[in-house]
Amino acid sequence: MAYSTDTVAILGLGLIGGSLARALRSSGFSRRFLGYGHREQSLRRGVELGVIDSFTLDLDELLAQADIIVICTPTLVAADILRRIVPRLGEAGSGPVVTDAASVKGALRDAALEPDGAMPAQLVLGHPIAGSERSGVEASRADLFAHHRVILTPEQDNDPAAVELVRAMWASTGADVVEMGVDEHDAVLAATSHLPHALAYTLVDALAGSERSADIFRFAAGGFRDFTRIASSDPVMWRDIAIANRDALLQAMDLFSAHLGQLRAAVAAQDAEQLLATFSRAKRARDHFTADLAARHQGKAQE
Amino acid sequence: MAYSTDTVAILGLGLIGGSLARALRSSGFSRRFLGYGHREQSLRRGVELGVIDSFTLDLDELLAQADIIVICTPTLVAADILRRIVPRLGEAGSGPVVTDAASVKGALRDAALEPDGAMPAQLVLGHPIAGSERSGVEASRADLFAHHRVILTPEQDNDPAAVELVRAMWASTGADVVEMGVDEHDAVLAATSHLPHALAYTLVDALAGSERSADIFRFAAGGFRDFTRIASSDPVMWRDIAIANRDALLQAMDLFSAHLGQLRAAVAAQDAEQLLATFSRAKRARDHFTADLAARHQGKAQE
Repeated sequence: MAYSTDTVAILGLGLIGGSLARALRSSGFSRRFLGYGHREQSLRRGVELGVIDSFTLDLDELLAQADIIVICTPTLVAADILRRIVPRLGEAGSGPVVTDAASVKGALRDAALEPDGAMPAQLVLGHPIAGSERSGVEASRADLFAHHRVILTPEQDNDPAAVELVRAMWASTGADVVEMGVDEHDAVLAATSHLPHALAYTLVDALAGSERSADIFRFAAGGFRDFTRIASSDPVMWRDIAIANRDALLQAMDLFSAHLGQLRAAVAAQDAEQLLATFSRAKRARDHFTADLAARHQGKAQE
Repeated sequence: MAYSTDTVAILGLGLIGGSLARALRSSGFSRRFLGYGHREQSLRRGVELGVIDSFTLDLDELLAQADIIVICTPTLVAADILRRIVPRLGEAGSGPVVTDAASVKGALRDAALEPDGAMPAQLVLGHPIAGSERSGVEASRADLFAHHRVILTPEQDNDPAAVELVRAMWASTGADVVEMGVDEHDAVLAATSHLPHALAYTLVDALAGSERSADIFRFAAGGFRDFTRIASSDPVMWRDIAIANRDALLQAMDLFSAHLGQLRAAVAAQDAEQLLATFSRAKRARDHFTADLAARHQGKAQE
């Protein structure tokens, strides 16, 4: 492999970036961790916590020192950083290798293509399917990615050695690394993650604004707390995702709304048969999914 | 108090009925527990598990033996049972006292009024805000109601002693018993429980039916599992709730859909400001709610 793994630069030291640095230090995949970002306080805290060894506020210095750059900022900032980094990358085979952790891949691919219409050989886009409604470097932990999926979306122009390095990096955190096309990724994530967040935010906002909101929240219980957990996620991160994955999210929202409209009609008509059929289908699908998810984690735990 | 608490009859021995019997036996509130229902297998299992002492398939026998009757069947069955029981109840002050655990109160009040246009003095409607996506007597446990709210919706015609008895019964399970009007109850529950269930069922059903469903469920993770947990709930129970609480549920669905439409417009317009404002409002409301819920449980735990 032509690339070194010695020094990893984390751009955006929050939950994901901090957890990745902790995991890679713990696995021994890399020796040195640099931070970069606009919030000097997070970077200082990262040094105090031993998550990173040092930080810089200078992008050129970062590019000179890092073997691997992982962009862990909100999606739109990640796109801006890519536009600035891509023109400074050298020939295939020369470092640094660049990757990211954003929940949207199409918008980042487009940003990477802007400077000169080609995907740099060393830029491998990726997305760890892990997170928490908590955010910030304080919430970071070395096992955040263990038994979780990481999706890489390599492009034809990518250097296979760079793809292999990014795959090895995530594998060392205990993640299960898979590959997928950019558009497929964005459609799947819109359905399984971006749409549920949109629904949870919408539900809480609708109820909070209603005239009965005091009573509503007073009598809401554990089921409501679980259902709305993701509405406590970072609003900036989700604003960026909603903007960056606009088309796939709209498609998922429209699919949902069409089904909700059908359910509304069944409720209005008190159509017992259709209500039971819908709820039964959903229960079967959800029970099947959770059995699969449990088996996946169980299998991993036994490895 | 003119009423006895010796023998409790549970009509519909599932998660709620089974847990109530276990809790009342454990607290010593009552001595003897009878089961009644159409599924003899559940009743036999209830005896095996020591949840009930015996069972009958004969409603007249039940009425003759029980001091307290708790209807824990799905809502529409509960309405049918009320129509049959109400004409057989005696004068105020004579047992049995009758209550229920259904998630909808208006439809049950209406059923109770059918036989002779008046609310029987000994019928006190109620609703424990507790449950699980698991169902059946096997899943029942004595602490299901501890630190949970139970809402009673007493009517003017109720005998205050009967209301007091039902309140004392639930209090002995560790629940926090409050009173509320029937319509208020149904509107609050539509918002906090019935609507979220409708959304979760709709989401899972929409995704299960989509062309990408295999990939979607393959890459869904813990956040999706939590968000859709309530879609594993009993379809019959939720069919009945959707039918029995039609008007309040439609109102809640329409409120939600109006807000979802606004969010869709913001996503389509890539309106960063509105997206951030919506997500931030929702996060604040949800964080506030969970802090309250935690404090409520904390306070209870310290009692």
